[in-house]
This record gives sequence, C-alpha cells and structure tokens, in this order.
Amino acid sequence: MRHILIIGAGRSATSLIQYLLDKAPSENLFITIGDLSEESAQKFTQGHSHAKGILFDVFDEKQRAEIIPQNDLVISMLPAHLHMEAAMDCLHYGKHMVTASYVSKEMMALDGAVREKGLVFMNEIGVDPGIDHMSAMQVIDRIRDAGGKMLLFESFTGGLIAPESDDNLWHYKFTWNPRNVVLAGQGGAAEFIQEGTYKYIPYHRLFRRTEFMDIEGYGRFEAYANRNSLKYRSIYGLEDILTLYRGTMRHVGFSKAWNMFVQLGMTDDGYTIPHSEDLSYRAFVNLFLPYSPTDSVELKLRHNLKIDQDDLMWGKLEELDLFNSNKKIGLKNATPAQALQKILMDKWTLKPDDKDMIVMYHKFGYELEGQKKQIDSNMVLIGEDQTFTAMAKTVGLPVAIAALKILNREITNPGVQLPITKEVYEPILKELKTYGIEFKEKHVPYLGYNPNNVAG
Amino acid sequence: MRHILIIGAGRSATSLIQYLLDKAPSENLFITIGDLSEESAQKFTQGHSHAKGILFDVFDEKQRAEIIPQNDLVISMLPAHLHMEAAMDCLHYGKHMVTASYVSKEMMALDGAVREKGLVFMNEIGVDPGIDHMSAMQVIDRIRDAGGKMLLFESFTGGLIAPESDDNLWHYKFTWNPRNVVLAGQGGAAEFIQEGTYKYIPYHRLFRRTEFMDIEGYGRFEAYANRNSLKYRSIYGLEDILTLYRGTMRHVGFSKAWNMFVQLGMTDDGYTIPHSEDLSYRAFVNLFLPYSPTDSVELKLRHNLKIDQDDLMWGKLEELDLFNSNKKIGLKNATPAQALQKILMDKWTLKPDDKDMIVMYHKFGYELEGQKKQIDSNMVLIGEDQTFTAMAKTVGLPVAIAALKILNREITNPGVQLPITKEVYEPILKELKTYGIEFKEKHVPYLGYNPNNVAG
Repeated sequence: MRHILIIGAGRSATSLIQYLLDKAPSENLFITIGDLSEESAQKFTQGHSHAKGILFDVFDEKQRAEIIPQNDLVISMLPAHLHMEAAMDCLHYGKHMVTASYVSKEMMALDGAVREKGLVFMNEIGVDPGIDHMSAMQVIDRIRDAGGKMLLFESFTGGLIAPESDDNLWHYKFTWNPRNVVLAGQGGAAEFIQEGTYKYIPYHRLFRRTEFMDIEGYGRFEAYANRNSLKYRSIYGLEDILTLYRGTMRHVGFSKAWNMFVQLGMTDDGYTIPHSEDLSYRAFVNLFLPYSPTDSVELKLRHNLKIDQDDLMWGKLEELDLFNSNKKIGLKNATPAQALQKILMDKWTLKPDDKDMIVMYHKFGYELEGQKKQIDSNMVLIGEDQTFTAMAKTVGLPVAIAALKILNREITNPGVQLPITKEVYEPILKELKTYGIEFKEKHVPYLGYNPNNVAG
Repeated sequence: MRHILIIGAGRSATSLIQYLLDKAPSENLFITIGDLSEESAQKFTQGHSHAKGILFDVFDEKQRAEIIPQNDLVISMLPAHLHMEAAMDCLHYGKHMVTASYVSKEMMALDGAVREKGLVFMNEIGVDPGIDHMSAMQVIDRIRDAGGKMLLFESFTGGLIAPESDDNLWHYKFTWNPRNVVLAGQGGAAEFIQEGTYKYIPYHRLFRRTEFMDIEGYGRFEAYANRNSLKYRSIYGLEDILTLYRGTMRHVGFSKAWNMFVQLGMTDDGYTIPHSEDLSYRAFVNLFLPYSPTDSVELKLRHNLKIDQDDLMWGKLEELDLFNSNKKIGLKNATPAQALQKILMDKWTLKPDDKDMIVMYHKFGYELEGQKKQIDSNMVLIGEDQTFTAMAKTVGLPVAIAALKILNREITNPGVQLPITKEVYEPILKELKTYGIEFKEKHVPYLGYNPNNVAG
C-alpha cells in the first residue's frame, strides 16, 4: 500500500480526490485527507475504504511529525505561502511532494537537498501554472526538435462562466477567489517583449490594452497582459525570442468595463474607508467623485469617465446596483477593493446550476527551413457542476496524475521541479485528454507583429 | 557667546546662514557650519569672524560627541531621515534643535524626554511645512478667538519659476529636488474631505482633478491634491471641519500635460529598464506604446493619449525633445522615473539668471454670528538670484529666526514642537515680513462647496 496525504480539502480539491479514490483499489493507494475541518475532510473520503479524513493543522509541528512519516507523498492544496512547513518535513522524512503553486524562493532553496535525497517536489502543476506549462512546452519542444526557431510565444488563460450560464452584461461571474479578481494586475507595470522591444503597461492602462482571439465554437475573447511575461524566457528556454506575452482571458467587453473601477480608484487595497460599514453603495461610488451640491452621483460618474448616454458600460454599472442608496457595504474598515468585492459578490456569485469554463490559448510563431509559420492551440473545458468544476478538474487532475506517476516511478527527475520536461508533460497531457482536457491545434499564417518587415 | 551648529550646507542653507551671520555680532553668536565638504562649509562662512566651517559627518559618533556639546543649539538641514543621530545627541547633551522637516515617528518618540529636559526641538519650520503652518494657524486662531467656527480650510503651496524667467511651454523649471517633482503624488490615493464627505483620488487621476485660484498681479494658478490632507484636522484642531484640502500649486496647464507622463507609465520608479543607458529618448517613449511595424512613435502616442493635432500639449512634448532618436538616456539600470528626470533636466534646469518663486494660497471658510464668511490669503515671493532663491529664503529664514528666538528664550515651550502656537508664529511671521515674506488677506463671499444648500 502507498500512502498519500492531501493537505487542504477545499473546493478545488474535488477532482483531485476523486481521481485518487478511483485509482486507489487498482493502484493500491491509501489516501489521508487532512483539513482544518475534520467534517469536511471526512466528507471528501466518501466513505471509501482506502481513505480517511482527519483534522490536520499544518502549523501543528507534533501532528506533522506524526502524520507525514506515515505517507509516501504529500499533496499540499493550501495557499502558496503555507507550503513550507510541510515541505521541510517532506525533505526531512524523505517524502515526495506535489503542489499547484508557483515555486517560491523558499521552495527553490530546497532544490539541492531535495535532489540529493532523490525526491521529487513537483510544483506549478495545476492549470495556470500547470497545464499552460505542459501544453506550451510540448509544442515548443516539437518545433525545436524539427529544427525550428521560436520567434513568438503568446499564452492566455481565463477562468470564466460557461456560455450556458452567462446571463449578465459583464459575461463574468466569480468562479475562483474573488479577491484575486479584484486585485488582478496590481503591484507593478506589466512587462513583456514584442518584436524585440520591451513594453510596459502601467496598471491604470492595463485593461485598455487588450487583444482579441477567436476560438471556434466559442467566439471572440479578449486578454489583458499579465504582470511578468519576461521570466518565461528562462523557464522555457526562449532567451532570444522576439515576442513573449502572457495574458488573462475574459469575454469581450469585460476589461473596458472593469477599467471604470480602476480609473475611479475602487480597486485600491492600500487604505481603509472610515465608517465603511454604514456606507451605501451609492455613497461608496461618491467617494471617488468630486463634491457637488447639485449634481447626481450618476451624472458625475458619467462625466468623470466620459460615458455617453448610449454606452452599454452604463448598463453594466446599473446591473450591479451601484447607485443604490439603501444597500450597505456592511464591512468595517474596508478598503475600496474589499467594498467593491462585496458589491460584485451580490451579482457575480454562481447560482446553483451555473457552470464554469476554463479557456487557454497559445500562439507559437517560428521559423523553419526559411519559412515563418505559426501554430495556434487552444483548450476549452466546461465544468460538470459546482462540485466538479472546470477549475477543480484542470487544477486537480494534473496534480493527481503527477502524484501517482511519481509514486509509480514514471516521473523520477529529482529536485524542486516544474512540469516542463517531456518525461512529465507527455504522459500527463495524454491522460488529461481522457478527461476532456485537450488542446486543438491549427496551423495559421505567421502573423507576428511585423509580417512585411515594414519600418516603424 | 552662544554657539549654533548647522549641519548640512546645501543650496537651501544660504539665507539661513546669511541671517545668522548678520546677527552674530549683535546677538553674540558663533556659527559652526558642518558639511561633508569642508570647502563648501568654509565658503559659507564668508570669512566671518563669528563663524567657522568644518568637515562634519553626522554618522561619525566620535565627532558628534566632540562637536555637539560645544554648541547650544543644532540646526539640521540634512534630509529628514538623517536627523536622528544628531537629535539623540542633542537630547543627551541637553541642546536645542531646529529642522525644517516633517516630524518622523522616531523624532516624535523623543517628545517626553525632550520636554523633561526643558529643551525645544522645533520641526516643520521651513516653507511647506513651516510658513504654511504659521500663516494658517494665525488666521484660524484669529477666527476662533472672535467666536467663529471653521467650516473650510484649503491650503496650496508651489515652488515655481518666476514670471520673468518663465520661458517654456510648461511654465515650469526645477527649483527644488527634481526627483521629488517626478515622483510627486505617488504612494497612495490622495485623501481629503469636502462638505463632510471623504474623497479619494488615485494617482493616475490626480493631475486631472485640479482646481484653480487667482492671485492679483500673477494671474491664475492650478493645484492638485496632496496625499494626506486629513492629518491636518488633528494638527490644527479642525476635527469637525467640513472641508479640508491641501494641494500643490502649478502654473495653469502643467498638471494636464504632466498627466501624459503619468498615463504612459513614465513616472514609475518600481522597476528598471534593461540597457537603459543606450536607449534614445524616442525608444524610451516607445517602451510605453504598443508595437507597430508601420506607425511612428508620434502617431502611436497621439492616438494612445487622444491628443488632437491642434492641442498645445503636443508642443510641450516636442519642446522636451522627447522624440529625438540620437539623444541617449545614458543612465544604467534606470527606472522610468529616473529616465524621465534625465530628459526633463535637459530643459527644466535653471539658467544662470533665472529666478524662482514661492506661492502660497489659503482659503478659510467660517461661520461667525450666523453668517458664513471667507478669508483668502496669499503670499508670493520671488527669489533674488540663484543664491538667495525664494526657496532658500522661505525655508531658511523661519529656521534661523526660530533658532535665535529659542536661544533668546522667546520660544520656550519644551518638547518636539511644530510652529502652530502663537508664541512661535506671531513673532516669526512678523519678522518674515521685513524680508518680503508677507501674506495678503482679503474677505471674499463664502464660496464653500454648497453655497445654496442644494441637495446632491
């Protein structure tokens, strides 16, 4: 019997746990699910004979020292900053580890020691980061193996509402952590490179510098730039690439409308508003507009943001009930971002039957035998329901598959790893297809940014 | 003989030193000027028999322990974060201290001990902070003493180019630390209160929410909001005031044009640009614009910022030679803000005969005997030359006057102080008049923001 400990049984762990429970009898696995809620942990086992749910506190050193040695591999589904306690113990007791989080500096610092013990600490193996790495590297390696030279790589991911559940003017609902959505793009300028030229977009312009992409059967999407595309040059071995750009996908029109909140200053998380609990939605909006004894909040906002009478953006604001003077923020010492999140959650929370959707779109530009070519590749996955969401599947299945393959010695390269080598991505992408997570590729004319080499 | 130690003999110390040298014989003063450049320190003494210049390093503990005990009062003209070493020693050896800087938390923490020893540590006694405190409190106290209730206080200060030296389209030159000008307004939303309503302006909107004010003989000015006006409620005892707003004055049109740099992201100081030393001004601008193989940097910028063909803003950019592809930034690992500063310094550096100007404008709205009234008060000072600038006079003279009055036991209230009590501001404002630093008051109709109590 091989033992796996899963730390953190949240909404995104459903598909991960289901996969491992399904494989448990044939693969001889025993799954321990540890969570701060014992009830939640036990519910997740579904009474399976190869599983148990326990109360587990990652900061309880004694408990870690008791539980971790009983397992062969630890999966941490906790937020990224909570991995290190378990990681240090995994290293100490010689256990493998899998997370879906970005590798932190602290995690990377363990690389030498992890490698020395022959352990695999696989990270960034959810959806983004995760499936994006794997699906990108599969095509990039194929192009290189054929003798091609990469010219352009663009990659976009979005966690969205499925078309059948898309019933608001924003074409958006919270399918993931709302706070991250409200704060998206903050913390510094977006940096990327286009045709060999560095480009920078400050936060307050980010949502107006979108680009479009079409997915057959799903229509047009838009994307705004992620903060740091440049680091993928070294991760993917694309040091000399002319264009490298990563972005976040939304349904068309979202970004331009979201920009209203950015412009007003409503996404600021840096200060708190006095008496925010008693503030009406209307009074909240008025904080960001000049005082006037005569003019309405509505007209001040229209004027401030130059919104014409017939602009659909206005409907988006009204739909959120933003000018309501009876609804209260109801949160003490709220930052503008927290107050805005509260308002949005009234309208953007999933209904019981709503489904989510994950979309991913890559563009690979390259030169092969003197010719410029391009492959576009995309993946769309719609969730089954609110348990087996597209998010839970795309985050959890790669984690689960990787965990099993590490135990089965199919993934063996030791150290603090990302899923960017063939050994890892080939079998995982292959298995993901059986779960409907599949990329469609098509060859398109190389568009690049300078098709005719015109001076500029 | 009373001994004064002045630490830091920079450009803004000229009027301060001149004042003390002039008074030295009659007031029995001996002035020691300490600077990291001994030559500079000695030059400042002008060979005066009551003064000497020495090499002085504020971080040299041994030297401090030797020099500070020989003096009765220490004036620190160093940047604010360098005051504490001298302040600790002043406390230890029982010496008074004067600075023109905002009181830091560390400085404030000394208050009890300073008070106990009967010492005066006078801070914020330059121009802004300094003359603004004194001139505001003089009027506020007068209104209150007459039984009035303060309704509104707005206060604006600007360090500008004098009309006779104003020869560029921006109507601006660097008369003070250029870096502070480039970074002005960053670090968080501007917070203030208007008619009892809190108002917040994010940085990227700051330079478009200006207001205008007229000064007889000098025409119209504009002002953008300072970051934290709200703290002046407690400093000035205006806890219940309906409107409190502080701002920075510029010649009309500056803010709207400066906003172009803000919008593009050129004032960002948070990241460095690769190979910035080799970047042309034109290539620098292009970093903030989308890539195009065909379109010029000029047209991309016009489109990006929606600048019409006949907009004067364009001339302001051309005047800075912003599209020059030969001039290089020439600074390694420059942030956008540092690169922009370099470009601006080509054009905004004072010429030998240029003069600077300090402007200050206060509005005091109040209710007296059932009537709403308003006093507007303003001060304009034009520098003599580039030694005795308006900045050096308005910063240095209040410091010098306060220092002498402390030694003469005319200012005696012990502790870490600001110049907000009558004991301090009355005699200093009176003496400043003899140097041309004088406020002109006029009674105007109370404008406020809600003259007719219209609902809004």
